[in-house]
Amino acid sequence: MDTRQTDLYDTGGGGHPEKGQWIEEFIQGRTVTGIFAVAEAGKRLKKDGSPFLRLELQDRTGRIAAVAWEHGHLAGRLETGSIVRITGTVGSYHDRPQLTISDLQIVTTAMPGEFFMTASREGREALRARLAKVRAGITDPLLTELLARIFEGEGLLEPWLGAPAAKLRHQAYLGGLAEHSLNMAEHARWCAGFYPELNGDLLVTAALLHDLGKIFEYRVTTVIDYSDTGRLEGHVVIGDRLIRRIADAIPEFPDDLRMHLSHLILSHQGRKEHGSPVVPQTLEAVVLYALDLLDSRVAAYRDIRDRHRGENRTWSDYDRLDERFWYLGESGEGDEDA
Amino acid sequence: MDTRQTDLYDTGGGGHPEKGQWIEEFIQGRTVTGIFAVAEAGKRLKKDGSPFLRLELQDRTGRIAAVAWEHGHLAGRLETGSIVRITGTVGSYHDRPQLTISDLQIVTTAMPGEFFMTASREGREALRARLAKVRAGITDPLLTELLARIFEGEGLLEPWLGAPAAKLRHQAYLGGLAEHSLNMAEHARWCAGFYPELNGDLLVTAALLHDLGKIFEYRVTTVIDYSDTGRLEGHVVIGDRLIRRIADAIPEFPDDLRMHLSHLILSHQGRKEHGSPVVPQTLEAVVLYALDLLDSRVAAYRDIRDRHRGENRTWSDYDRLDERFWYLGESGEGDEDA
Amino acid sequence: MDTRQTDLYDTGGGGHPEKGQWIEEFIQGRTVTGIFAVAEAGKRLKKDGSPFLRLELQDRTGRIAAVAWEHGHLAGRLETGSIVRITGTVGSYHDRPQLTISDLQIVTTAMPGEFFMTASREGREALRARLAKVRAGITDPLLTELLARIFEGEGLLEPWLGAPAAKLRHQAYLGGLAEHSLNMAEHARWCAGFYPELNGDLLVTAALLHDLGKIFEYRVTTVIDYSDTGRLEGHVVIGDRLIRRIADAIPEFPDDLRMHLSHLILSHQGRKEHGSPVVPQTLEAVVLYALDLLDSRVAAYRDIRDRHRGENRTWSDYDRLDERFWYLGESGEGDEDA
Amino acid sequence: MDTRQTDLYDTGGGGHPEKGQWIEEFIQGRTVTGIFAVAEAGKRLKKDGSPFLRLELQDRTGRIAAVAWEHGHLAGRLETGSIVRITGTVGSYHDRPQLTISDLQIVTTAMPGEFFMTASREGREALRARLAKVRAGITDPLLTELLARIFEGEGLLEPWLGAPAAKLRHQAYLGGLAEHSLNMAEHARWCAGFYPELNGDLLVTAALLHDLGKIFEYRVTTVIDYSDTGRLEGHVVIGDRLIRRIADAIPEFPDDLRMHLSHLILSHQGRKEHGSPVVPQTLEAVVLYALDLLDSRVAAYRDIRDRHRGENRTWSDYDRLDERFWYLGESGEGDEDA
Amino acid sequence: MDTRQTDLYDTGGGGHPEKGQWIEEFIQGRTVTGIFAVAEAGKRLKKDGSPFLRLELQDRTGRIAAVAWEHGHLAGRLETGSIVRITGTVGSYHDRPQLTISDLQIVTTAMPGEFFMTASREGREALRARLAKVRAGITDPLLTELLARIFEGEGLLEPWLGAPAAKLRHQAYLGGLAEHSLNMAEHARWCAGFYPELNGDLLVTAALLHDLGKIFEYRVTTVIDYSDTGRLEGHVVIGDRLIRRIADAIPEFPDDLRMHLSHLILSHQGRKEHGSPVVPQTLEAVVLYALDLLDSRVAAYRDIRDRHRGENRTWSDYDRLDERFWYLGESGEGDEDA
Amino acid sequence: MDTRQTDLYDTGGGGHPEKGQWIEEFIQGRTVTGIFAVAEAGKRLKKDGSPFLRLELQDRTGRIAAVAWEHGHLAGRLETGSIVRITGTVGSYHDRPQLTISDLQIVTTAMPGEFFMTASREGREALRARLAKVRAGITDPLLTELLARIFEGEGLLEPWLGAPAAKLRHQAYLGGLAEHSLNMAEHARWCAGFYPELNGDLLVTAALLHDLGKIFEYRVTTVIDYSDTGRLEGHVVIGDRLIRRIADAIPEFPDDLRMHLSHLILSHQGRKEHGSPVVPQTLEAVVLYALDLLDSRVAAYRDIRDRHRGENRTWSDYDRLDERFWYLGESGEGDEDA
Repeated sequence: MDTRQTDLYDTGGGGHPEKGQWIEEFIQGRTVTGIFAVAEAGKRLKKDGSPFLRLELQDRTGRIAAVAWEHGHLAGRLETGSIVRITGTVGSYHDRPQLTISDLQIVTTAMPGEFFMTASREGREALRARLAKVRAGITDPLLTELLARIFEGEGLLEPWLGAPAAKLRHQAYLGGLAEHSLNMAEHARWCAGFYPELNGDLLVTAALLHDLGKIFEYRVTTVIDYSDTGRLEGHVVIGDRLIRRIADAIPEFPDDLRMHLSHLILSHQGRKEHGSPVVPQTLEAVVLYALDLLDSRVAAYRDIRDRHRGENRTWSDYDRLDERFWYLGESGEGDEDA
Repeated sequence: MDTRQTDLYDTGGGGHPEKGQWIEEFIQGRTVTGIFAVAEAGKRLKKDGSPFLRLELQDRTGRIAAVAWEHGHLAGRLETGSIVRITGTVGSYHDRPQLTISDLQIVTTAMPGEFFMTASREGREALRARLAKVRAGITDPLLTELLARIFEGEGLLEPWLGAPAAKLRHQAYLGGLAEHSLNMAEHARWCAGFYPELNGDLLVTAALLHDLGKIFEYRVTTVIDYSDTGRLEGHVVIGDRLIRRIADAIPEFPDDLRMHLSHLILSHQGRKEHGSPVVPQTLEAVVLYALDLLDSRVAAYRDIRDRHRGENRTWSDYDRLDERFWYLGESGEGDEDA
Repeated sequence: MDTRQTDLYDTGGGGHPEKGQWIEEFIQGRTVTGIFAVAEAGKRLKKDGSPFLRLELQDRTGRIAAVAWEHGHLAGRLETGSIVRITGTVGSYHDRPQLTISDLQIVTTAMPGEFFMTASREGREALRARLAKVRAGITDPLLTELLARIFEGEGLLEPWLGAPAAKLRHQAYLGGLAEHSLNMAEHARWCAGFYPELNGDLLVTAALLHDLGKIFEYRVTTVIDYSDTGRLEGHVVIGDRLIRRIADAIPEFPDDLRMHLSHLILSHQGRKEHGSPVVPQTLEAVVLYALDLLDSRVAAYRDIRDRHRGENRTWSDYDRLDERFWYLGESGEGDEDA
Repeated sequence: MDTRQTDLYDTGGGGHPEKGQWIEEFIQGRTVTGIFAVAEAGKRLKKDGSPFLRLELQDRTGRIAAVAWEHGHLAGRLETGSIVRITGTVGSYHDRPQLTISDLQIVTTAMPGEFFMTASREGREALRARLAKVRAGITDPLLTELLARIFEGEGLLEPWLGAPAAKLRHQAYLGGLAEHSLNMAEHARWCAGFYPELNGDLLVTAALLHDLGKIFEYRVTTVIDYSDTGRLEGHVVIGDRLIRRIADAIPEFPDDLRMHLSHLILSHQGRKEHGSPVVPQTLEAVVLYALDLLDSRVAAYRDIRDRHRGENRTWSDYDRLDERFWYLGESGEGDEDA
Repeated sequence: MDTRQTDLYDTGGGGHPEKGQWIEEFIQGRTVTGIFAVAEAGKRLKKDGSPFLRLELQDRTGRIAAVAWEHGHLAGRLETGSIVRITGTVGSYHDRPQLTISDLQIVTTAMPGEFFMTASREGREALRARLAKVRAGITDPLLTELLARIFEGEGLLEPWLGAPAAKLRHQAYLGGLAEHSLNMAEHARWCAGFYPELNGDLLVTAALLHDLGKIFEYRVTTVIDYSDTGRLEGHVVIGDRLIRRIADAIPEFPDDLRMHLSHLILSHQGRKEHGSPVVPQTLEAVVLYALDLLDSRVAAYRDIRDRHRGENRTWSDYDRLDERFWYLGESGEGDEDA
Repeated sequence: MDTRQTDLYDTGGGGHPEKGQWIEEFIQGRTVTGIFAVAEAGKRLKKDGSPFLRLELQDRTGRIAAVAWEHGHLAGRLETGSIVRITGTVGSYHDRPQLTISDLQIVTTAMPGEFFMTASREGREALRARLAKVRAGITDPLLTELLARIFEGEGLLEPWLGAPAAKLRHQAYLGGLAEHSLNMAEHARWCAGFYPELNGDLLVTAALLHDLGKIFEYRVTTVIDYSDTGRLEGHVVIGDRLIRRIADAIPEFPDDLRMHLSHLILSHQGRKEHGSPVVPQTLEAVVLYALDLLDSRVAAYRDIRDRHRGENRTWSDYDRLDERFWYLGESGEGDEDA
């Protein structure tokens, strides 16, 4: 069973309902009952012309195909993110498991997010504590004020703690955004000690805020997807715009500092091809980019390794994004003992 | 003599001072007197160790190197953009003309901008009239209101009419921004008639505003240079941030329209490598990008042709930016008769 | 039912045969009869070692997989582009519809092209009228003569009116080539009015002819495919070679004009990577390239939108060619009312 | 003294005039007399406002800057490629040698090309003999006929023997085109023996003709420059168009062979970025491309080595085109003994 | 039946066992018995929860899917490269042939490699003879000694003769490495005769050794796969390291020659993007790269053509690696008669 | 005066000679005497045909052009790296300072390196102490042994402490290699604490050794230049080959560890285009690459900032390598107070 923490999820309303069975526990030939998210929904026709449903169901532990021969009339009411309570029998189809649904009810009340999605191994409280510690290390009163207005004043603390850092790659789970940003902020503080000419408070603040726009770039229901604004505007601009609005309202905030902070947010992808409208042009900006690369690559490797855990393999599947195979031989297994 | 219009320049203060001679009129061996902008200023040492000045002077008609043997003590008071009144003798140095300065006074009162920079062939009033006509064609009340707030409410009309569209390439002269934006807006209206599914009012508005951030990207004194914010944030983000602040204040402005307008501003460079944080994802966005390409390439060609005017050449010098020679043979000379 | 025009198709021989049922009208479980094009044909073995046919059938309204258990002996006589008259029953296989064929006859007489392929919404006569109007606007007698020799003298008018503009993307239907070329020619005339130094007649002529080679690049039977010469030589060179042969035969045709026209044909893809052996080096060439970009991108967007019509979606599927999702939210639905 | 052959040059008219001194023989402080080509010509102003000439003179052995204080009135009659008879004194200017001209006459009669340009080490007759041998190895009667029509019928033999293969890089001297094409043809015959499925006659023919368009791409007077058609259309298309016109006139020439030959001409640059409108798609095409790479890289290396001959250096200057330094250590000096 | 030679394979131990039937001879509905390699092995669950095997079997003539309902308990003992003796019935599944296994035994004794993999059309002895001839042409005593130490002293002759040149593309069969290297060596000797300044012995030696590291880059059991060292270090470095160790042990081996040989090995991929840590900087290095390109492209074309042999097609399937279709029209069929 | 440490230089032989004046102290019109390195040497001809010398002289504080009218006969004895004792007068030429030499003696005895080159601000002893501390943190006995054999056994400690990290960019001064490697090693230890699955000892060892080959890639005399082996083989391969030879001699060194260490050395440039023959495929490899990026970018920024120190500028000159201007505004000046 996964050790990931569950205080990262929305609790849903009214008490703690029964989840029922988890997908990873399904056994061929058994009848199962439980609550699942709809990852994909489609209507198909039977040979007699009447409709049936083909679904892709998801919970935190996996995905399974499903078919509901008698519920075609519900097609218009189901979409990605819907929640259903289902009874069915586990079979297989084309060598993949498939659930044949005998009973299906659409759930319209809120459900605990932990039913459907993975989350950071660190819980919300652990992340909150790390943030508090990082913030305590910042002595610049204006940057302290800015963070207070963003996290408390605007109420963005809880969304930031719960958001994913990606849809697919590196920390694509609840809490991933905070985990990634905190890793970078702690590296930033280390670097500020190492390279004394760095403006440490500014670098740490930028590390915490660099991906702030991702809160709005993704639409998280029971799956992670892009929002319209996420695709049409992108998290880089969304984040900068938000931070600027807030900084503008702090009367004594110096123009230079505000401009530098914007530059850090805007250039953190490092290259224009990666979606930064400007490239890094200050020392803090080149460091921020290198730290983003460092932590996101470590997280991507960890993600690859986790997908292959238990398979006892020396090499990963081919990784199309990074155009290579990954060696799992030593480090992949080495930390089992850790 | 250049036919470019002069109502695009700041008028400077108090009456119309005497410019004196223009650089393009200088004759070898003559003594000249006039007012010039300092494009570059440097201090050098004479053989006896005492300082002298090496300057690059500019007016609207050209540039000339200059040396002032007796004014080294003024070095700290001169910088790019300073204005000087000079008497000197036209000689040559390394086969280039050079002015040997006998008298130099720093001018601290405002001077007419037309002394120093070129401007659009269309004057400020002609551009203003074109804008009025384009705006009159927009019937959407919210976009009408947005333009009113930007141009009148924020007082950006005059800066927009006077700004250049570039530092070096295509419409890099006063009024170039308005000229380019109006060309695109008129093309946009044509396209909206041609492709009926286009949202014409939105496309025309985006054409007018797509480079609005350039007002702040450049620092125009007596030469065109980048501002700090121009380099660190870029005109794409500066413009979007400004437009969003104003649109946010129009109560009934729909979210979808605001998001689409931002998308048009942010994606108008067409490709991430060119500095757009997002690529065009709507029909209006692909049209806006193609129109930007169309007008900026025409302007770039015109600029190349103008630089070679009167040289009676078939081919331009090698153009490093576009990695080609340009053929001047027909069209370069053909419009002489027009 | 599609409103696309049918005078773009070859009429086939002798009278108007019965098409029978259209693929989009098929209903699960029914027996259907009709005439279809063979998009793909393959021979497979039954368990007893005897052959059967697996076909992909196509008509103007769609495609369907089919299996013919008793017609394996016909395998050698069927290929892409063959026409068959079929009776069968609509079932499904792997969740896709499949036709089980009970009767199959190979049709060797010509059939109306409209049975099998889509075509421009504008009919052949509408396109012909637009061409006439564009040609009437050209006053240069040599270019007028050139067009007359190409369209009438060489008999290329009808092939040009009927050809597609692409195999897959943008205007990949009968009449698409003429539609795209006429759009560009009308934009070209607008531009010639806007930018007075343009040689308008030359630009309009080049817009009409720039893709002339596509008549020979594709092999259109009952589907659009590349010809051998299309792949080995490409439409850019095929078109230029043809135009040059004809222009060479017009005695007084000036060398400069002929060279410039060739340059426009050869450089219209804009970049060497896109298959132009030379890049644009004249003003007309940069305008032609921008207009090609403008109309082909609009057409590509329309194509994406059409594929998703009726699906009530905000976003397209991922577009591998352009590496983005397309936003259908506003403009995708907005023209429903138009 | 250079051992390059001189029968590659136009002989010029009437007898063999006196060249006078060669540039490589100039000695500081001496008065020299001779005939030179004008590589660049410019008019400048003296301090008193009267004009003088600044020239760049060239002969086969080198280049030298020159100044003619008393001949400014001739400026309009001199251009790149003009020939002058000059007397002057060798001095220096900015650490470079400079000729101060006391007497200058414009030469309007033809002069031997060998005065001004380098040529292949193999002479015209040697190249002609190699070609004869290569052609004798071709047994296909149609390709034999095609070569006869091109070289004899169209009279292209002598231009082909005399043309350069480039303006700057690899075999950029008279006879370079033939030398490069013959090298490739002989390699092609070797390959046809090695890989038996190759169509040897076709490959050898394509090797001879692949750069035929270069005869027209360059304008060779007393220096090598691009022609207008060379820049606007390019040698790939010029050559193919010419070969096709001639092949079309051979009645029995099969369509497939003609198409394949065109494909070889059009694709020989190997990649679209290098100016081929189509990429190699046949076995002969991939071999032709590899042989072009082989011989042109050997020639480029030889050219680099020759420029540094006698300098006793281990490494070349930085080569901007190929982005590397070249090692001259062993092979650069090793062939001195050969 | 394939004419490829069989002395390239490991003979396996003790006598020549019976292979049984070949995959290309399988007939639908028949029961077959034979020995096969396991290309992929997987465990699946039946509806009752008990395991079964899904295998991909391979021999020299092809591949076939297989299912073993009763042998799920063997899953842990089967992996890629295992050998099995099988009895089963040929059926089909999803329109692909599938073997239903009734009897399965794991074979642990060595088997003749010719059962499972293709090999060069030239046999081991033919390749050995070619190598002897090439080596006999080398007169430099140190390079002769180096080759003797590598091939005989280190015992690398037999591994080199038997290794493939690739996993997928060009000469991806036993003996492919030697075939490719010998082709290049013979071209190299031709080139040394053609370009006299080449160090022929060095070039020929480098051609023989350039891919030596591939012996260790691949792990050849009954299929060709990458070894760990092959992926983590690459054949370029593995080969150079090995050659250097051996050359270092030859006392009189000159430093310059050793460095040049290393440079040839290290730069033979021609470009850094292709995995060469340095680019070619000597004449021999540019020639070696061109010859590698020549022979590997010919081999790649032959491979494409072989895959389509007997299909009577004009065009290959789309080749994703080279991003083109290949024309089979002439040369593809032309050599049938050869 | 520079605070850089001087124990990094070779001390030269016998006592501490007098350097004489430093270039940065030269004053126009004064006579100076001192010892300088020859950065470039050339022979030119006077107007009377006799030779003179043009030199570029260098010491640790700068460079100056020089001319020696009476020492042309020494031309053959001077080359890059030679040392001269000179008396001359400081004048100027083309607005650059120039030394006119009256007395010149070639110095053939060793001279202190500190006369001619800059060095790390940390001295040799400080770097040695940091290395000792880093090594003390490694507990793996085999890696400890490997480092001992490399640094002490092979005597590479002193060369490693004194070598530069680059010719031009980032830490291109004596001690730069050690400074850069130690920075990375200390970051590596931090990361190993942060990401527990990292093999910290291996990562730290690889950080220390990743650029070991640079000791041999550069030829450091009195200037930094590439060695032949540096250009033809590259530091990546040179370093790996050396480390492998040493590791091979440690009997119990596990194959896996040796392979992983080689992978780290070979892949540390991160991308093939940057000269790594393989890309990072392990967790340690991606971290090593990110840390190399981090420290080398910080060092590059520091270098840019140092070049502009004291100029009171907001922006650097255009940086061609990184294609941007650098902002010096805040951090450039902010550390003045530090």
